[in-house]
Amino acid sequence: MATDTVTPTDASDASGYVQPEVDVPALTRLLDGRYAEVRNLVRSNLAAYSSVLEDAETLSREDYRERVKEIVVEMAGTGQTGMGFPEEYGGGGDIGASIAAFETLAFGDLSVLVKVGVQFGLFGGAILQLGTERHHEEYLRRVVTGELMGCFAMTETGHGSNVQALGTVATYDVATQEFVITTTREDARKDYIGNAAEHGEMAVVFAQLEVGGEGRGVHAFLVPIRVRDGEGEMVPAPGVTIADDGLKMGLNGVDNGRLWFDEVRVPRENLLNRFADVTPAGVYESAIENPNRRFFTMLGTLIQGRVCVGGAGINASKVALTIAVKYALRRRQFEASGEQEELLLDYGMHQRRLLPLLARTYALHFAQDVLSASLHDVLTGVREDEHTQRELESRAAGTKALGTWHGTRTIQECREACGGAGYLAENRFAALKADTDVFTTFEGDNHVLLQLVAKGLLTDYASDFQDMDQFGMVRFVAGLAVDTVVEKTRVHGLLERVRDLLPGGDEWDQEAGLLDPEYQLAMYRFREEHMISGAARRLKRGIDNKMDPGVVFSRVQDHVIGAARAHMERLVLEAFVEKTRALPDGDQKVALSLLCDLHALSGIEADRAWFMEHGRLSIQRSKAVSREVSSLCRKVRPLAGDLVDAFGVPEEMLRSPELIGDLVPMRG
Amino acid sequence: MATDTVTPTDASDASGYVQPEVDVPALTRLLDGRYAEVRNLVRSNLAAYSSVLEDAETLSREDYRERVKEIVVEMAGTGQTGMGFPEEYGGGGDIGASIAAFETLAFGDLSVLVKVGVQFGLFGGAILQLGTERHHEEYLRRVVTGELMGCFAMTETGHGSNVQALGTVATYDVATQEFVITTTREDARKDYIGNAAEHGEMAVVFAQLEVGGEGRGVHAFLVPIRVRDGEGEMVPAPGVTIADDGLKMGLNGVDNGRLWFDEVRVPRENLLNRFADVTPAGVYESAIENPNRRFFTMLGTLIQGRVCVGGAGINASKVALTIAVKYALRRRQFEASGEQEELLLDYGMHQRRLLPLLARTYALHFAQDVLSASLHDVLTGVREDEHTQRELESRAAGTKALGTWHGTRTIQECREACGGAGYLAENRFAALKADTDVFTTFEGDNHVLLQLVAKGLLTDYASDFQDMDQFGMVRFVAGLAVDTVVEKTRVHGLLERVRDLLPGGDEWDQEAGLLDPEYQLAMYRFREEHMISGAARRLKRGIDNKMDPGVVFSRVQDHVIGAARAHMERLVLEAFVEKTRALPDGDQKVALSLLCDLHALSGIEADRAWFMEHGRLSIQRSKAVSREVSSLCRKVRPLAGDLVDAFGVPEEMLRSPELIGDLVPMRG
Repeated sequence: MATDTVTPTDASDASGYVQPEVDVPALTRLLDGRYAEVRNLVRSNLAAYSSVLEDAETLSREDYRERVKEIVVEMAGTGQTGMGFPEEYGGGGDIGASIAAFETLAFGDLSVLVKVGVQFGLFGGAILQLGTERHHEEYLRRVVTGELMGCFAMTETGHGSNVQALGTVATYDVATQEFVITTTREDARKDYIGNAAEHGEMAVVFAQLEVGGEGRGVHAFLVPIRVRDGEGEMVPAPGVTIADDGLKMGLNGVDNGRLWFDEVRVPRENLLNRFADVTPAGVYESAIENPNRRFFTMLGTLIQGRVCVGGAGINASKVALTIAVKYALRRRQFEASGEQEELLLDYGMHQRRLLPLLARTYALHFAQDVLSASLHDVLTGVREDEHTQRELESRAAGTKALGTWHGTRTIQECREACGGAGYLAENRFAALKADTDVFTTFEGDNHVLLQLVAKGLLTDYASDFQDMDQFGMVRFVAGLAVDTVVEKTRVHGLLERVRDLLPGGDEWDQEAGLLDPEYQLAMYRFREEHMISGAARRLKRGIDNKMDPGVVFSRVQDHVIGAARAHMERLVLEAFVEKTRALPDGDQKVALSLLCDLHALSGIEADRAWFMEHGRLSIQRSKAVSREVSSLCRKVRPLAGDLVDAFGVPEEMLRSPELIGDLVPMRG
Repeated sequence: MATDTVTPTDASDASGYVQPEVDVPALTRLLDGRYAEVRNLVRSNLAAYSSVLEDAETLSREDYRERVKEIVVEMAGTGQTGMGFPEEYGGGGDIGASIAAFETLAFGDLSVLVKVGVQFGLFGGAILQLGTERHHEEYLRRVVTGELMGCFAMTETGHGSNVQALGTVATYDVATQEFVITTTREDARKDYIGNAAEHGEMAVVFAQLEVGGEGRGVHAFLVPIRVRDGEGEMVPAPGVTIADDGLKMGLNGVDNGRLWFDEVRVPRENLLNRFADVTPAGVYESAIENPNRRFFTMLGTLIQGRVCVGGAGINASKVALTIAVKYALRRRQFEASGEQEELLLDYGMHQRRLLPLLARTYALHFAQDVLSASLHDVLTGVREDEHTQRELESRAAGTKALGTWHGTRTIQECREACGGAGYLAENRFAALKADTDVFTTFEGDNHVLLQLVAKGLLTDYASDFQDMDQFGMVRFVAGLAVDTVVEKTRVHGLLERVRDLLPGGDEWDQEAGLLDPEYQLAMYRFREEHMISGAARRLKRGIDNKMDPGVVFSRVQDHVIGAARAHMERLVLEAFVEKTRALPDGDQKVALSLLCDLHALSGIEADRAWFMEHGRLSIQRSKAVSREVSSLCRKVRPLAGDLVDAFGVPEEMLRSPELIGDLVPMRG
């Protein structure tokens, strides 16, 4: 169903190009994939609770928090939020489904989303992944129903990214067989902890374990933080001090708070002991000898949170794009040659602003699909070798960074593309902007996450990968021949093949091949490999010149992060190309291919300076890329309405009467 | 006072470079310029009313609006808000001072800023600029004190940018000598009008004037919108319907609303008749014959609002940068080689994220200074030829676009650079983000404003400049030889000179000259001239190929807007270079030159693809630019604390106990 056949397009141009038509329901099925059922369950739950979008604006913060809690518990009753837990505890036993459910929640109120994430992903996830049967038996059923609300108390005011340096301490007291939890300095208070200010009864607290005077690194403990007083009111447990984080930029339906522990005692059994334990007599035991590795193994089991946040960023973008595209298909501005004003989406600049973001949203959606399938396989044990596990962590980190930055950027551009009307709260952008803003820094700061990706690439997930901090990584890489680094990278060998495929020099100026996915992928792979080896070379050179590793890292940091980005961009493009290729021939495939080309070439265009600097784009060809992007925008433009409809954002989640409601005349 | 001498910098490197020291008070004086006194008045007013920053979070919307109104009226009492009005009406008689005062207000609560803008800039400004003595005598004194609150009712739901197509109609009734004001269709309601929902007693209403059955285009009328009822309560005037715009993303201390007019009658004298009048007998008279020109002359007198909003965007950036830089000078993250964790600002990536934005903030500040001085001269009649007036309008439009986009981008980057703590409301970013967001689209959508700039460049403010809509512009340009367009542009002749100065080709790879302002300016000028002629050539080619002007414009739109951006970037750089050059030799000049170089080269780096594509940057030199930007970041890093201190943002406006308060250990 092409949406607008009267608009000037390339629909039947001289070159014989025929505009494809999009089958919207079929495209929705493709996007929803194997989890269509659970996604539809969430869609209908969102529609049922759509009044929360207004509650967010009209209720007091107190009442809004209560309302969000109610909704979370009621949604738990539908099974939607427990998909990731084992069936014996009332869960759905399907990790992939749990991610699909969470992502889809991002179409609606994001306080509900984040509260679900805190309760079931972080708190419940930590018990599931770091605890053992005794914890599962005792707690999981009540966690899954939402009866037992809890916190994930890792971040401290002084340490968010570098969590190995946390200042909370848990000392084992062999006399009473208890752990004694203490906040050792003011900036070691737990901070920004969801569910802490109001609803949490218990917290998974990350603290430095000390047994017999020896530090054993960060471990997780189940700590009751609230108890019922004589009158049945919930009050802070003895030794626990709780404060409210107060008003936030957004997500004010989530009760973030601070926690201090003053010699809080919990039984020995409250150590989440899947990876390490302390015997009653005070002997520390762990199957993983190296303490760094132990710590990162623990963290590794928690990556589901990152996968979920990345998906949420991508799905929040879909809401913004749906509104902005629909608006641009209705709103007219300035007379064209004739009598009527032009539709916004018929302006070339407007196409350039929105359509590459639309294409990238599709690309990231499919990349996220690959990631969550891979997470599912690893967590269900289909694949469990360590290299796969490390790669998965890296991919989760990188996809989270790209997905959440994309969310921030897309929501901003869409807001601006809707003008003053986009500024009214009832039009979703206010909430989308404010609520998603923290996505780029929580569950791992995006820059720190990309450094993690880079570390994996540069060390090929070497056996001591997990032991290395960033300076360790500098020394490790510097200790290798650069060729070794390149050899270790997974795309090894491409450099040469790509060089043949991509003749440089200004004589090679024909446009042929720009729309060949093999060409596009070769460009992305070349960039990735070149940037990884470039970063390695720079690190090595710095150390060889006797510079301090800290200074070396600081100076090479943007190259390191650039390499990680390039790696992730290649993975994203591969996911889109593979998805498109697998489609049967026909209009749908043509349409998706247009979008995939637009994504691939927009990416090359954005970084064309780099490609020119490295001899992979001639001046003529660089200009040709820009022309092609504009041409693809014109071809995608008539499909834009269908392409956003296929996201399947429930109508109730769009609101926006000022933008897409009845007041605005229909497109003609 | 270099802030941190223990940090590794280039302070005493092998090349003999000596790190300059910044004299903070002297730099503040340089930034404050000739309006230091009024800026300091505003600073102390902001400090006195700093509790409003908390009120914004704690009061109900109703109460917050009242509080903002009170503050605006009390500030009016200090003379701060009336600087732009003639002294005989209680004003300060100094346009430049009024802009300086407004800009400085942007350090504080932005609802106060916008309410001041609505009341004194828009409402009062329209009476002053579009009215004549009878209006001034009757209203201005009460406007200046804030006793008479009013609205600027131009925008309609259906028309924001294309205001010539407004749907509100004012028909002259010769029988009663009144104008009858009517909202003719639903989307012609006035919308997003500040002061409308609560406080406005009167509105300047823009409507299509009809006299004797003939349409005369948009004119402005003074319309009472509220009257006192029997009990002394303010209620909507007969025939006026008022609705509240409701919750907005930000600026909720401003009462935006909607207005409908149902045959509302106002006396003939309520036409603001500086540029056109209707005689009692119903004869339309104007000294400006052409209706388009008349309309744009009217609009032209109102550019002060744009100048102010651009300045506000720039100054809001200063608040964000002050917080983010101070935080980065205190917060440590991950161990370096030694024991202590590294300061954030010693990470190369962190420098790259913040310092070019800091440099650009200085650049835009000085560009804004040039603009407001020029506005002052034009409005006070020092310069009043039409070409100067048009140029000023163009410069105001372009500076507003650059300044407000810079605000959005800088605030976002600074928020992310402060991690989770930056998400708490008490840390200013929540308000800064939400409140400034609309700056990019109000007082003219930024893209539409850049089109206005481009129109001026392409037509050299031709005599029929103001008559042309965008399609008229296409036809006009197409009617010229392209050489004529190039000839008409003000930078004519540069193309050749620049070509000599900037030998292209890969053989020219030495780094010498990158730090020469003449080189930098030549690059910016070349780009500007080339883009203008390129846009002209494309427009002409489209028309020559018999394409529809609408389609031609749509396809060339990004080039047209690119040309306008290039023009504005050149003006901004020129302002910074000139300011720096004028300084006496010494450390201050060295420091500002570093910053100016960083700004200039960051701009070239960001657009290096274009410069390579157009033969102005060899591959080697392009890479050298990137290296130099990194090197400049390292040189600016030890000055960063002083450079933000020099902005003189009152301490009370920073709040941010979590980021820069006592809890965070001081930098060591």
